[in-house]
Amino acid sequence: MTQVEYDAQLDAAIGRLHEEGRYRTFIDIARRRGQFPHATWSKPDGTEVPVTVWCGNDYLGMGQHPVVLAAMHEAIDAVGAGSGGTRNISGTTVYHNRLEAELADLHGKEAALLFTSAYIANDATLSTLPRLFPGLIIYSDSLNHASMIEGVRRNGGAKRIFRHNDLDHLRELLAADDPAAPKLIAFESVYSMDGDFGPIREICDLADEFGALTYLDEVHAVGMYGPRGGGVAERDGLMDRVDIINGTLGKAFGVMGGYIATSAKMADAVRSYAPGFIFTTSLPPAIAAGAAASVAHLKQDQALRAEHQTQASILKLRLKGLGLPIVDHGSHIVPLIVGDPKHTQLMSDMLLSDHGIYVQPINFPTVPRGTERLRFTPSPVHGPREMDALVKALDTLWSHCALNRAELAG
Amino acid sequence: MTQVEYDAQLDAAIGRLHEEGRYRTFIDIARRRGQFPHATWSKPDGTEVPVTVWCGNDYLGMGQHPVVLAAMHEAIDAVGAGSGGTRNISGTTVYHNRLEAELADLHGKEAALLFTSAYIANDATLSTLPRLFPGLIIYSDSLNHASMIEGVRRNGGAKRIFRHNDLDHLRELLAADDPAAPKLIAFESVYSMDGDFGPIREICDLADEFGALTYLDEVHAVGMYGPRGGGVAERDGLMDRVDIINGTLGKAFGVMGGYIATSAKMADAVRSYAPGFIFTTSLPPAIAAGAAASVAHLKQDQALRAEHQTQASILKLRLKGLGLPIVDHGSHIVPLIVGDPKHTQLMSDMLLSDHGIYVQPINFPTVPRGTERLRFTPSPVHGPREMDALVKALDTLWSHCALNRAELAG
Repeated sequence: MTQVEYDAQLDAAIGRLHEEGRYRTFIDIARRRGQFPHATWSKPDGTEVPVTVWCGNDYLGMGQHPVVLAAMHEAIDAVGAGSGGTRNISGTTVYHNRLEAELADLHGKEAALLFTSAYIANDATLSTLPRLFPGLIIYSDSLNHASMIEGVRRNGGAKRIFRHNDLDHLRELLAADDPAAPKLIAFESVYSMDGDFGPIREICDLADEFGALTYLDEVHAVGMYGPRGGGVAERDGLMDRVDIINGTLGKAFGVMGGYIATSAKMADAVRSYAPGFIFTTSLPPAIAAGAAASVAHLKQDQALRAEHQTQASILKLRLKGLGLPIVDHGSHIVPLIVGDPKHTQLMSDMLLSDHGIYVQPINFPTVPRGTERLRFTPSPVHGPREMDALVKALDTLWSHCALNRAELAG
Repeated sequence: MTQVEYDAQLDAAIGRLHEEGRYRTFIDIARRRGQFPHATWSKPDGTEVPVTVWCGNDYLGMGQHPVVLAAMHEAIDAVGAGSGGTRNISGTTVYHNRLEAELADLHGKEAALLFTSAYIANDATLSTLPRLFPGLIIYSDSLNHASMIEGVRRNGGAKRIFRHNDLDHLRELLAADDPAAPKLIAFESVYSMDGDFGPIREICDLADEFGALTYLDEVHAVGMYGPRGGGVAERDGLMDRVDIINGTLGKAFGVMGGYIATSAKMADAVRSYAPGFIFTTSLPPAIAAGAAASVAHLKQDQALRAEHQTQASILKLRLKGLGLPIVDHGSHIVPLIVGDPKHTQLMSDMLLSDHGIYVQPINFPTVPRGTERLRFTPSPVHGPREMDALVKALDTLWSHCALNRAELAG
């Protein structure tokens, strides 16, 4: 093919996104440490505008917590910037080991295994399990995160997709397969775009009945649910029934990185066979140190978790009071359905430019077409003044855009 | 399957590694900032022993450079720990934008795209290109890194594996395919385990002849080769002939993260279509800030690069003088072939416990069976005293183990 033809293909790929109104432009936003959720928006023309961030995943504001920042500063001073190697080749430090011990303890498991992100933790683990259990069939919830989908797909192993949270469908699929085949059910505790919960207990019951392993993504729950921040499985007393728990250090814990917590044997096998774990530079010691401080702190700070839920409840109540079509499944995530990519983009643009409120439009493929939305993430750092400003701005905008109230709510 | 059966499968998987002598035990090593390559080895029994690290990939010691650490401290103080979101959803800051501009400039490209690691940069980019160029055939060097192999394999697109650095074989494969099909040749500039170079110019010639794109992994070269640290392609005046350059921020740049540098169109398309880029929390601002400072510094510091090469030359000369079977392709990597996993492990153990020298054994699958090795990475921070100690220890050990001299050298 010629250069001109390659360029034409790229133009076509990018053109499709523009046509569908889902071309993404990254907004340059720097939060100000000590003043979250206040941030500086650096506009493309170079000017800077103060804004309030309403769509971050640093759910508890731990990214500015003094214990986290102190741990990072200390580690940089002690051992420098990067780890300098893979976990096996000079890249394991006391910081990595401490963090893994902290995480194993958090989930009541024998072991934890750090990855550079929860994305790669999902992808690497789910794609490695079929090598450990030849013939493995993976049953995957239809709304699982992209990283789980990639992991399940990767090696072309057997997979069954069950309808979102549909236990009857899952049972039907399990019953249709060879009882002797190794099986794994992969699902989430909090689905990030609707904020609904997975039925952990019922899925574990089915797993017991059909001799399947369970894999639970708690990325949008760790730090936030359960008396020590172990996630929804901790809150519901189910951690011991889940074989592999996946979590992130980049959302409620406010830093970066991902992990699985599981049995010592399982962790050892994944550690030994997963290319995505073996062949990559380990997390910088300062990142591991900051994350460990955050996890340790949140094991104690139940008040912060309570405040987070309170903030979410208040925002949902106020938006419902205005008749806005929010989705409410009782979690901390507040999606406001707009239902069209161009309207969603427009509302986001107007919130940013006219009201100094930053909330990113969520489009396909992150959510199904026709359910495009603004997704708000209230947190303990959002005070009453910030919430008043948001509610007022949304009320004005909704009228301005002549959008229907309440009809799209889920 | 029952729990007992699952456990038995895990036992079998781990048992295979023990049998083959390639079960990996991570050594807990923390370098001391300001005193690289000196480090503290925390033994499993809790005691601490001073050691010298000889196997890290922080090739230039930038992980302790004051400009890098200052940039990290400043960013933590300014904006906190994590980015709080994906690049599209509140996770793009001025630090990310600056770093991408720094990298685009480094490689003389229109754009660069940051990933959380070079592993995911390879995997995500190579697995996304077939979506951008339907029918794409990828020609991949047989010794490409695991992350490239994973990326090429992932979506089941067409692939051809050419024998390592074998231009005739590559030509043969290119010629056998439909001239109209989109094509990509994926290879490396420095192969990390042997330290040999890829024939960049000749591969680019073939790419021109057959209308193929080129994808070059410069992970073990960026920062170290070329007048500004742009890699081997910069050194050889070939950057403009490569379509996509992949690099890491976790080796010579001493921090963490990976990237591609390419045309604006290509970067825009990969940014828009690669799940491994879209659906993951962006790098912490402090990591981006430290990496940008490192890249900027190394554009200027040709002396450090020269010193690095000198150190490698001296070590190779001295080991050759003892008749030890090192592999020498003229790069900075010094592999010493032992040729058996158990001997390699034993030598590594004895170097650590008896001589305070830390060099990790390299086994299958990182290198082919029968070529197990110790891989030394001399750097500007290794002084004459450290080198004397290493050379003396290896001489003693080689005699002690009654290993042959010179016969296994490549």
